[in-house]
Amino acid sequence: MTTQPILLTAKEIEQLRKEVGRPTLMGKAIAENVTALETFMSLPLDVPGHGDGGSYEHNRHKDNYTYMNLAGRLFLVTQEQRYADFVIALLEDYADKYLELGFQVQKNTNPTGRLFHQILNEHGWLLFTSIAYSCVASEMTEAQRQRIIERIFIPMIEMSTEKYAHRFDHIHNHGVWAVAAVGACAVAIGRPEYLEMAVYGKDREQQSGFLDQVSNLFAPSGYYLEGPYYSRFTIRPLVLLAEIIHRHMPEVDIYNYKNGVVGNTVQALLATAYPNGVFPAMNDASQSMSIADAGVKVAVSIYGAHYALDDNILGMAKIQGSVWMHPCGLEVSRAYEKASAEREIGLPYWPSMELNEGPEGEQGAQGFVRMQDKSGDVSQLVMNYGMHGMGHGHFDTLGITLFNRGHEVLREYGFARWVNVEPKFGGRYLPENPSYARQTVAHNSVTIDETCQNYFDVERADSVHGLPHFFEVNDKNIKGMSAFANNHYDGFAMQRSVFLLNLDELEAPLLIDLYRLVGEGEHQYDYSHQYAGQIIRTNFEYEAFKELNTLGEDNGYQHLWKVAAGEANETALVSWLQDNSYHTWLGTSSNSDGSNSTGEVIFTRSGANDPSFNLRSEPAFMLRSRGESTLFASVVETHGYFNEEFEQSVNARGQVSNIKVIGHNEIGSAIEITTKNSVVTVLVSNQSDADAATVNQMTFNEHTFNWTGYYSVEVKTQSQEIN
Amino acid sequence: MTTQPILLTAKEIEQLRKEVGRPTLMGKAIAENVTALETFMSLPLDVPGHGDGGSYEHNRHKDNYTYMNLAGRLFLVTQEQRYADFVIALLEDYADKYLELGFQVQKNTNPTGRLFHQILNEHGWLLFTSIAYSCVASEMTEAQRQRIIERIFIPMIEMSTEKYAHRFDHIHNHGVWAVAAVGACAVAIGRPEYLEMAVYGKDREQQSGFLDQVSNLFAPSGYYLEGPYYSRFTIRPLVLLAEIIHRHMPEVDIYNYKNGVVGNTVQALLATAYPNGVFPAMNDASQSMSIADAGVKVAVSIYGAHYALDDNILGMAKIQGSVWMHPCGLEVSRAYEKASAEREIGLPYWPSMELNEGPEGEQGAQGFVRMQDKSGDVSQLVMNYGMHGMGHGHFDTLGITLFNRGHEVLREYGFARWVNVEPKFGGRYLPENPSYARQTVAHNSVTIDETCQNYFDVERADSVHGLPHFFEVNDKNIKGMSAFANNHYDGFAMQRSVFLLNLDELEAPLLIDLYRLVGEGEHQYDYSHQYAGQIIRTNFEYEAFKELNTLGEDNGYQHLWKVAAGEANETALVSWLQDNSYHTWLGTSSNSDGSNSTGEVIFTRSGANDPSFNLRSEPAFMLRSRGESTLFASVVETHGYFNEEFEQSVNARGQVSNIKVIGHNEIGSAIEITTKNSVVTVLVSNQSDADAATVNQMTFNEHTFNWTGYYSVEVKTQSQEIN
Repeated sequence: MTTQPILLTAKEIEQLRKEVGRPTLMGKAIAENVTALETFMSLPLDVPGHGDGGSYEHNRHKDNYTYMNLAGRLFLVTQEQRYADFVIALLEDYADKYLELGFQVQKNTNPTGRLFHQILNEHGWLLFTSIAYSCVASEMTEAQRQRIIERIFIPMIEMSTEKYAHRFDHIHNHGVWAVAAVGACAVAIGRPEYLEMAVYGKDREQQSGFLDQVSNLFAPSGYYLEGPYYSRFTIRPLVLLAEIIHRHMPEVDIYNYKNGVVGNTVQALLATAYPNGVFPAMNDASQSMSIADAGVKVAVSIYGAHYALDDNILGMAKIQGSVWMHPCGLEVSRAYEKASAEREIGLPYWPSMELNEGPEGEQGAQGFVRMQDKSGDVSQLVMNYGMHGMGHGHFDTLGITLFNRGHEVLREYGFARWVNVEPKFGGRYLPENPSYARQTVAHNSVTIDETCQNYFDVERADSVHGLPHFFEVNDKNIKGMSAFANNHYDGFAMQRSVFLLNLDELEAPLLIDLYRLVGEGEHQYDYSHQYAGQIIRTNFEYEAFKELNTLGEDNGYQHLWKVAAGEANETALVSWLQDNSYHTWLGTSSNSDGSNSTGEVIFTRSGANDPSFNLRSEPAFMLRSRGESTLFASVVETHGYFNEEFEQSVNARGQVSNIKVIGHNEIGSAIEITTKNSVVTVLVSNQSDADAATVNQMTFNEHTFNWTGYYSVEVKTQSQEIN
Repeated sequence: MTTQPILLTAKEIEQLRKEVGRPTLMGKAIAENVTALETFMSLPLDVPGHGDGGSYEHNRHKDNYTYMNLAGRLFLVTQEQRYADFVIALLEDYADKYLELGFQVQKNTNPTGRLFHQILNEHGWLLFTSIAYSCVASEMTEAQRQRIIERIFIPMIEMSTEKYAHRFDHIHNHGVWAVAAVGACAVAIGRPEYLEMAVYGKDREQQSGFLDQVSNLFAPSGYYLEGPYYSRFTIRPLVLLAEIIHRHMPEVDIYNYKNGVVGNTVQALLATAYPNGVFPAMNDASQSMSIADAGVKVAVSIYGAHYALDDNILGMAKIQGSVWMHPCGLEVSRAYEKASAEREIGLPYWPSMELNEGPEGEQGAQGFVRMQDKSGDVSQLVMNYGMHGMGHGHFDTLGITLFNRGHEVLREYGFARWVNVEPKFGGRYLPENPSYARQTVAHNSVTIDETCQNYFDVERADSVHGLPHFFEVNDKNIKGMSAFANNHYDGFAMQRSVFLLNLDELEAPLLIDLYRLVGEGEHQYDYSHQYAGQIIRTNFEYEAFKELNTLGEDNGYQHLWKVAAGEANETALVSWLQDNSYHTWLGTSSNSDGSNSTGEVIFTRSGANDPSFNLRSEPAFMLRSRGESTLFASVVETHGYFNEEFEQSVNARGQVSNIKVIGHNEIGSAIEITTKNSVVTVLVSNQSDADAATVNQMTFNEHTFNWTGYYSVEVKTQSQEIN
């Protein structure tokens, strides 16, 4: 009978042992794991019964497998017999009770396990416990091993592969957990036929099993259509099973499979993260999930060991502050140690990246544009012009977020859910998730006639996608992307073009945003901006209402209090303070002709029609403009510094003074931005068949504009004398 | 002519020099100061004209004196000639321009200076620049010195002592700045008569000058009636002038003057701070002012050098992360270095302290009760039962705040002001400061009939004060305080008694709160709780309103949106999540007899009638009870742990299940708290003439309660078997 650790060789264990007590990432990881394990081991052992998500029982089963997983490896690394004894005692206890527990009562679409309310969690238990078992099997008698195999592992494998066969090896992120759990257990207990099943599927003719999952769950770019929050959840079983296959089925050559799809996937996940390591909350995600997640740590270690160990990977390891306790982690730790001796490891500065979507990469993309300011701070601009994220999808095609100076400036609300907070609906998604968080108006986007994109029809949304226009990031002072979404509202074509511009006189890259809508007849367009912090000033009068009503009746509007509103001048300015920075938005629309107003600015706050305080109370403002085909244009300037504790404030007003629409038509859009010292003219091609060589010409107000390619940005800076 | 540094001797400078490059607090302070100075010196010199508070000009003059102050000492410590040259060049520039600048136009009650819009700031300039000048005077020619004295220093002294003689040496915190500035300059330029004037006042017969200020500005406890925010502002010139007197008028024996009033004052300031070093925002204060303030750093160094260097001072220095660059700071740095070599320096855990108010300490007090939980986390409970803080006073007598686990749980709004944020009314107090922030309803207190304490009449408020009942903190498991406020509402007597109780089964000390109101006829009592975070659950139904109206018309109510409300059962439960902790409030009132409801719970949010977005949008809830004389009773339990990033949640519900009022009368109040395993009976004396020996007896519902002294807390814990 097999009694070998499935992820470590004797020689590798010795290498890890040498790190104990050292001030390296691996040494720190071992020390932290020992501390955490010892704390948990100081509690009495407990194998409880059933519980709901977030309940004591749920958490305890999760803790049990988490600490068995640590204890198994720590037994090998530190040779502390108590750690093996802890795992064995818990396994014995589970062997006593597991089969006595009936299956839980089903509460959502996921089938139930015996320990957990959904098999997804049971697969987590099986995966980590199998690894733990393999580390301590040598310390058990044959009878002990047999009992655990017969009373836990085989019943679990059968549950996965037979009772819930339809969920086992399908192309879904839960399927990755299932095959990883079964594959790991197969190796741990010496039943290779189950590893085969995990890798190739029960039926080799069908699209099923791990290899088909990694080939089909992700786009060629490696992007996962439900977004990074779900991707990081799937990445852990994915890379763990990859490493098991690497070690136990070398003939698959898993790390080179399909041009390195495993590494590609990890890289695509990491490349979505904001500069502080937090993932943008795309699609039903929390605002705080980050690369410090345990699964991402494993992924970074495996990526570092098998693909590349560059400065960005070291920067990621720096944010993580430790590595996976495994030979792969040791490689990262050693590289980090070596590099640190020579230089200061900086935070990662990923290149700008366009991640395509769809099986062939032809269903739009997610764009990530990054630019550093003079101090090294990275601004990151994210635009969604890809697919709808299936059941988790938000209706926010052409929505953007902006991050700099350590916070999200144009913000994504994320999900309406308090994960694992049992009194909040068992930690599950809340009713306000579909009714608010997934609606178009909750995003930094334009809502037409107070309806949601795709009319909140998931099937309709899954059938359409954004159309990339350009993604140009080679100029270090101007980077931008543009895309169309022509099928998301009946009868409307939409195009958004966003840029980051480095101007010498500005402290941070300037966000330039052109949002164009083409439709028939007059409509209401709400150009929304989700911010955080305190309004500091505006350049227009507004009325703060004496009583508050909702902004509308449906499509998320019923959750927005209409707090204040005012007619904007030709250009509206809204400036706010967030943490230690000022941000100033100047916006206009093409609808200002004649009326001397570009529309109404409405200040809102979420939380209306929220009978159980499920929503966070957050502010936003929108420029509401009524008209026919319309071009919105705006900038966001990041400037100044405020420190309340030390009562310091500098540059609270910023340098940009105006923005105006010169014109727009089927050829292109032209806008002009005025700063203290410069005038910036931005011309963007609106033709979907344009390319880098296209010669464009258009005339507005008897002025003719010419440019070649997708866009032109011209900066005229006044000489200091004139100024 | 004097060319000696006024705060340092040659020998002391040598000692400081030895710390350059060392990893001590002083070494770090020097290194940080060098970095800051070098950054500032990389900008061109600039001596601008006038500006409003928060303007470039204002900030630049402030920066100029701040960096001259550093540069003067750094020249001596590092012997870097450029630092002296920098000070001299700036002084020359000021000598050119100062007299050419007319006085600014007056915008508030403070007279204007030539550099600043108020002489308060001009005195800051004079104080720090005098110190800087004294460090570099030896590097100047006699002609240079004369020019600077004649064109800057003497005119400034004359402005202070003649033009604004009425503001110079009076008993006011601004007066301390004036005398410190003039005193420092007097020594720097060798004009001892002005130091005499600073110390004793212009007229020795009058109450005036520094000695009378330190004797009269503070209560015998050392508490400053405007609160710690203003105290820390006054403490800097106070201790600087004390150190100057110590060195140049040793005959005053300043550090022993009036039983060490200088040290007393510093200690009273430090003892108000929350465990994380932030000062409670009592009276028109920001929520973030802390002991890291530059003035408090100086005070801690001087206190450590001249009074005591215990663990709490070292803990303060740890939070500050550095020391004052002066021989006094060196003493703290050396003590810290020595202690660190032997043990881990913890955060300060100040004893519980009652700080009396009034010239003779007979006008009430501020109470600070602290208790540690098993993990070492400190809960701090603050109650105001002292004087009204003059012009800055909030109408919150008997108001409380509670702090634990790194945040304020029952919160103080602080001021309505964005200090130094020029576009927000020049950084000055906003109209919403009186109309909301200072009103009773904005605090954790009880508002009667929707009016403010003392009817917002500052004169009336200044004429009354709280009456201490008891302050008992010697039992490590139960500490409490109680006080009366019988003159703050016409026809009402009020008493609040608050305790922290350590119960084995609870994670953190339990706040127990009894608020009793005695008046004629039926009234409306609003028992308010200012919290932060997300409501997790309640034990009663409530209605979230479809449209929002203000809770009232005046007295702060006009700024509160009425968000939701519901009839509470006999006991109301409101539980919320703040950062990583859950907090659960259970409250009741004596008005629940018969009706089966203890009153209405109303959820509010600030921000109504706020035409310029000056207020922060913050939630609160109140228990509104109508009745005659009423006892409110409540607990706040701190429990559980939530980590969104890692999706962990434990103990989201807490252990306390009920609280009820048994009865209250002129003898005492009796309440009962039920937890999972215990029943806690709390009896409190309501007799103002009671003392520790008083034998109390009262009967409610045929049950007689007996206890001796101010209060009795009895805990009956069920055996685990019964449970």
